Amino acid sequence: MTKLSIIMFSGTADKLMPVGVLASAAAGLGYDVEIFATFWGLLALKKDSPPPEVSKDYGPIGEMFKKVMEEKNMPSFLDMLREAKEIGNVKIYACAQTFDMMGLKKEDLVDIVDDVIGAMEYLEKSKESDITLFI
Amino acid sequence: MTKLSIIMFSGTADKLMPVGVLASAAAGLGYDVEIFATFWGLLALKKDSPPPEVSKDYGPIGEMFKKVMEEKNMPSFLDMLREAKEIGNVKIYACAQTFDMMGLKKEDLVDIVDDVIGAMEYLEKSKESDITLFI
Amino acid sequence: MTKLSIIMFSGTADKLMPVGVLASAAAGLGYDVEIFATFWGLLALKKDSPPPEVSKDYGPIGEMFKKVMEEKNMPSFLDMLREAKEIGNVKIYACAQTFDMMGLKKEDLVDIVDDVIGAMEYLEKSKESDITLFI
Repeated sequence: MTKLSIIMFSGTADKLMPVGVLASAAAGLGYDVEIFATFWGLLALKKDSPPPEVSKDYGPIGEMFKKVMEEKNMPSFLDMLREAKEIGNVKIYACAQTFDMMGLKKEDLVDIVDDVIGAMEYLEKSKESDITLFI
Repeated sequence: MTKLSIIMFSGTADKLMPVGVLASAAAGLGYDVEIFATFWGLLALKKDSPPPEVSKDYGPIGEMFKKVMEEKNMPSFLDMLREAKEIGNVKIYACAQTFDMMGLKKEDLVDIVDDVIGAMEYLEKSKESDITLFI
Repeated sequence: MTKLSIIMFSGTADKLMPVGVLASAAAGLGYDVEIFATFWGLLALKKDSPPPEVSKDYGPIGEMFKKVMEEKNMPSFLDMLREAKEIGNVKIYACAQTFDMMGLKKEDLVDIVDDVIGAMEYLEKSKESDITLFI
C-alpha cells in the first residue's frame, strides 16, 4: 500500500491548498494518507478560524491569486480534506504539543480531526511512508 | 537508480535557489530528478516573470543576502536548472491545476518545462523516489 | 535503523521549533537524525545570532504565539537540538555553499555543528532516509 505523509505546519491560504489537493489526489489513487496538523496548520483546523490569508511574500500577486480562487469558486482546503476522507483512507491528527501549548480542546477543532497524537507517534506512522512532506 | 522529487511551490528568491542547487547536485550524482512546479513556483517559470524577491520574513538580512548573491555573481535558479538538465536526467513538470487556474499556455513558460501534468500523475512518479521534498 | 533527514532552511522561530521537536522525538525513538543547515537555517546557528522572529505571514497571531512560548518557558530550538544530540545519534551539518557565500568560519557557529559538507554529500547521506523533510 502506498502512503503519503504530510506535516501540515503552515496556515496560509496558498499552502493549505496543496495539502487539500495532494490529499484528494492521493485518496483518489487509493493511497493511505496521514496528515499531522501542527502550529499554524492546527490553528487552521479550529472551528472558529478566520479564513486564511495568502502569504505576504508575494505582495499584490497574492491578492490576485486570492481573487482568482474566489472567482473560480474553488473548494476550500477543508472541503478538499472532507472529500478526501470520503473517498479514501485519510487520517488527520492534531499535534499534541501544539494542542497543549494553545490550550485547545478536542471540541474546538473541526470534525475531520481523527485524534490528537505526539510527534513520536507521528514519526512512527510516517516512517513507513513512500512520500513525506513538510508543508 | 536514486531519485529526487521536489514539489517546487515557493516563488521567493531564497527558496528557488535550493531547488536549483539540489537539482544540480543530484544530476551531478547521476540521480533522476523530477520537479513539479506549482503555484508561485510555476509562476516563476513564466517567460516574463520579474526577478523573484527574497522572503519578507528576514527583513534587512534578506536584502543583504540578495546583495551578496549579486556580488558573488551567483547563477540564477533558472540557470542552475538548465545546467542540471544538461548534465543529467532532470524533468520539470508544470502543475495542471495551477496551469488552468492561471489561464496559462505552454508557450508562456520557459523552455525547460517538459510537460503539464496533474497532481495524481505526479504522485505516481514521486512514490518511487528516495528523497521527496516540498520547497 | 530508521533515519530522519531534515534540510533546515528556514530561520523563523516558528519553523525552527519543529526542527527541534522532530529531532528530539526521533532521537528519543532511537532513529538516526541528520540535519543539513542551509541559508537562514545556517544563520540561526551562528553564535551571535539574534533570537529568531516569528514569520510575518501570521500578523498578530504570530506575536501571540511568541508570548505563549515565552510564558510556557519552552526550550529554544538550540536547547532541543542539544538535548537531541545528548540522547541519540544526531548529526548537524552546515551547508558548504552557504558557508562560503556568507564568508563564515567554523568558529562562528555554535558547538553543536558537526561538520561543513556540500549538497552532494548531503544527498548521498539523505537518500537512505525513511523520512526526508525540507523545513
